[in-house]
Amino acid sequence: MTHTSNNSSVATGASRRSFLRQVGITGGAGAMFATMGALGVAPTAQAAQREPAFHAPSKGDFTLTGKGAAKVVVVGGGIAGLAAAYELGKAGYDCTVLEARSRTGGRNFTVRNGDSTTDLYGNTQTARFSEGQYMNCGPGRIPQWMVTLDYCRELGVPIEVFTNVNANAYIYNEKAGMKAPVRYRTAKADVYGYVAELLSKATDKGALDRQITAEDQERLLEFLKDFGDIGDTLDYTGSPRRGYRIDPAAAGTPGEEIGSVPSASEVFASGVGRYFAFEFEYDQAMLMFQPVGGMDRIPAALTRAIGERRIRTGAAVSKITDTAHGVTVTYTQGGRTHTVEADYCIAALPPNILAKTAHNLGPAVQSALEACKPSSAGKIGLEYKSRWWETDHQIYGGITETDMDLSHIWYPSYGHQGRRGTIIGYYNTGSNADAYAALTPREREARAIAQGVKIHGDKYRTELATSFSHHWRQTPYLEASWHSLSGGPDAPAFAPLNQAAGRVYFAGDYLSYADAWQHGAFTSARKAVTALHARVLA
Amino acid sequence: MTHTSNNSSVATGASRRSFLRQVGITGGAGAMFATMGALGVAPTAQAAQREPAFHAPSKGDFTLTGKGAAKVVVVGGGIAGLAAAYELGKAGYDCTVLEARSRTGGRNFTVRNGDSTTDLYGNTQTARFSEGQYMNCGPGRIPQWMVTLDYCRELGVPIEVFTNVNANAYIYNEKAGMKAPVRYRTAKADVYGYVAELLSKATDKGALDRQITAEDQERLLEFLKDFGDIGDTLDYTGSPRRGYRIDPAAAGTPGEEIGSVPSASEVFASGVGRYFAFEFEYDQAMLMFQPVGGMDRIPAALTRAIGERRIRTGAAVSKITDTAHGVTVTYTQGGRTHTVEADYCIAALPPNILAKTAHNLGPAVQSALEACKPSSAGKIGLEYKSRWWETDHQIYGGITETDMDLSHIWYPSYGHQGRRGTIIGYYNTGSNADAYAALTPREREARAIAQGVKIHGDKYRTELATSFSHHWRQTPYLEASWHSLSGGPDAPAFAPLNQAAGRVYFAGDYLSYADAWQHGAFTSARKAVTALHARVLA
Repeated sequence: MTHTSNNSSVATGASRRSFLRQVGITGGAGAMFATMGALGVAPTAQAAQREPAFHAPSKGDFTLTGKGAAKVVVVGGGIAGLAAAYELGKAGYDCTVLEARSRTGGRNFTVRNGDSTTDLYGNTQTARFSEGQYMNCGPGRIPQWMVTLDYCRELGVPIEVFTNVNANAYIYNEKAGMKAPVRYRTAKADVYGYVAELLSKATDKGALDRQITAEDQERLLEFLKDFGDIGDTLDYTGSPRRGYRIDPAAAGTPGEEIGSVPSASEVFASGVGRYFAFEFEYDQAMLMFQPVGGMDRIPAALTRAIGERRIRTGAAVSKITDTAHGVTVTYTQGGRTHTVEADYCIAALPPNILAKTAHNLGPAVQSALEACKPSSAGKIGLEYKSRWWETDHQIYGGITETDMDLSHIWYPSYGHQGRRGTIIGYYNTGSNADAYAALTPREREARAIAQGVKIHGDKYRTELATSFSHHWRQTPYLEASWHSLSGGPDAPAFAPLNQAAGRVYFAGDYLSYADAWQHGAFTSARKAVTALHARVLA
Repeated sequence: MTHTSNNSSVATGASRRSFLRQVGITGGAGAMFATMGALGVAPTAQAAQREPAFHAPSKGDFTLTGKGAAKVVVVGGGIAGLAAAYELGKAGYDCTVLEARSRTGGRNFTVRNGDSTTDLYGNTQTARFSEGQYMNCGPGRIPQWMVTLDYCRELGVPIEVFTNVNANAYIYNEKAGMKAPVRYRTAKADVYGYVAELLSKATDKGALDRQITAEDQERLLEFLKDFGDIGDTLDYTGSPRRGYRIDPAAAGTPGEEIGSVPSASEVFASGVGRYFAFEFEYDQAMLMFQPVGGMDRIPAALTRAIGERRIRTGAAVSKITDTAHGVTVTYTQGGRTHTVEADYCIAALPPNILAKTAHNLGPAVQSALEACKPSSAGKIGLEYKSRWWETDHQIYGGITETDMDLSHIWYPSYGHQGRRGTIIGYYNTGSNADAYAALTPREREARAIAQGVKIHGDKYRTELATSFSHHWRQTPYLEASWHSLSGGPDAPAFAPLNQAAGRVYFAGDYLSYADAWQHGAFTSARKAVTALHARVLA
């Protein structure tokens, strides 16, 4: 479950497949549907099984053992650290959370009017968004299966649909030679139309006779006619699915479909199809969700549940010392040095930051931390004076894909039909993100706008009210959007982080199969909490 | 734009194609992307063109002509009638709306706790939904391009996403021999996987050499590998896209993909692919929307904007008389007969009801009205004591498709993670709807539940709190879900309805290319208003 960007399917499909794919068992299985019942997916009368069951520590756990809850210092107030303190708190553990930044949440970071940041290059920005406008600089979406939604339910954080896919959004591959953007619906109609035409004709010519039976070919043909909207001639010649130049309306106005249909050669050369598999991915398929009001409603709710008095912000940890009977954590706050003594520690800093923090956890831990390679990602929020993408383009959310270095444009999933709205003008990763990060905020805006104008025209520039850009690799105390662990989190190199180092436990999305997702942070924290609690009870 | 059910693409794809398809122009067009700029879809720097421009009548229109606004009686307070009165009201026309039912909205009908109906078979139901729970008995979704959304904006009706498609929802084709439901995501992975395998192998074997160039085949192959998640061997052997039995989580839990992968033969025989094209259709592709709080927020807002004093409910029209200088409409209200005199009339009743109303508009009008054939559709709302589809199945909205006579199951697009929720337990049409309508409400519930249990197990029965069912063909004063006009609304048979009959104008979704959609009613009303206003100004 490696997530490197919206286009995780494009960027990492092959490695994910080789890593995760289970060898399929096909054919020769007796009755037609002998295997259908084994498809998993909630056989009749059973609910779907999910991630391994997690039993939160509870006060009652101590009753039989005669033991008591311990004192735990949690280093890092991102999702993993907050989740650990929250779950341990249910059993009465005395937790203290140390967070270097001025707020909890870590990379779960929502920017609203007045919020200010200074990056490692020295750029200081203060957001000038209107009331109600915000941008999620870090995580922005939650798939239905991730435990993040369970925490939203448990914590009372209302959710709404995150619009991850929209037939009305555009695709624009400038490098591939496209002269104008096409809508997703148009691109899909054309690609699927030609795929259906080519396969149905191959079927018709007997090219598949050795692979599937005549009866199966008949069924395949039936599917393809519908899938590609091709007629009985099996020729793709366009389809109402492409969209209309003039919409169907009252009698007298049957509508006028949009312009001439490109040839198969033109369609495949345009590369529009490279984005289609994104929505098939397990972690990106609709429906997706977001908290109402901003992603940081989650850390805000966790912070309230833990208790603000247990959380120290502006507290930068400088040293973690495992002793014979506990852990000592040294941190600076307001220019002064403090220490916290605890029975256990959960180290929930990003590994690249932890690697720069003094500790006595040994060289194996240090090597493992250094082997976690930080990645880059950036976003710019563009607040507009009007929601022209809704009124002029009928785009009420979703994502436009490009091969320009802005990569993705996200239309807002909130505030539909309101007065103003905030587009994510770029969400990019790797060298594209680094290139934007190297610019001043004003230059980033200019570059993003110049590219967006190619898709949306002058309003993309003229309606702009304000912008705010954020880059994770250049963010103090985090310095990464996510991390790359060669071979995955269970590779031998990372073994020292998947167990306690003395009385110190490690947690974070990097130690999961859902890196860059809050689900990874939550489940990693649950794993650490479970191990710590078992040890306390033992 | 014929909409007969969720499965319009399946039911009417062929006729729609033949009616609406514009002959495509392919090939031989010079430079690779010569035609790409002509794709329509908002060329750079231009917003998309939409339906023909509508200029609402305004008070200023009368200034130059020296004329004044006229008196108009609007027969029927559904969307078409309300829209006509609303638009005419902007110019100061003196409108009176006559509505036979106790509320405005027509088929835009939202049922909440305490609402009561009696159908033509004599079944009386009173809804016993919890606070905040509702069901939209009629229209439930709004595509982005329809003018319905513009009215929501203009009238201040907040909208939210209608979840028309969900990778986590199920497909269950019992008649096709499926022994258990499969999730959409699983079905798609399998169908697209095998389609990619078959076409890529045909490409590899040279079966397409006469159709597309080697370079195009290379690009096609690249697409297919990604589209079907097939490796370099071009074999489909499953994919993480199918979903997981145990979800990927923390280190140590890479996840376990769901069960054995069915053969191509099994997949095509199951017929799961027949539902995939639904979401490509111009009128069904996500993103879709609904008003927050119920679809009837739209007629409620129109009613407020028109002014309640201009609207008479419980007023069943019995006669429409076109006179030399005006129109006289006779109606009964509270057992008494009344008449309204006006300069013009907009007849916005369903055609099947209008055909049963006395009038002097001539035999051509009567024949045209009788040629509009009423269709059937029904829904049942099932309120549950818990939202088990979210907690147990991770289904936060969307539609489960079946070949059982319940047809579609809709999971709610509102109230996510709340205490209770209301599923549409069937949304069916034609003979399926008629069969359910013939049952008592209790029998309808029992039949819907018995089928739903096959997909979701016992909780589908045990968690049920209450139900409410509604059938349009059996609804007094409406008696149709929508109408079938042979040859479309511009066929010669319907010409008498597309012009004024004396001083009477006709409006309704049936007189549009978006029948069964509010868009059809709105645009038809706009057309009638435009014609009437031009005549008044002339």
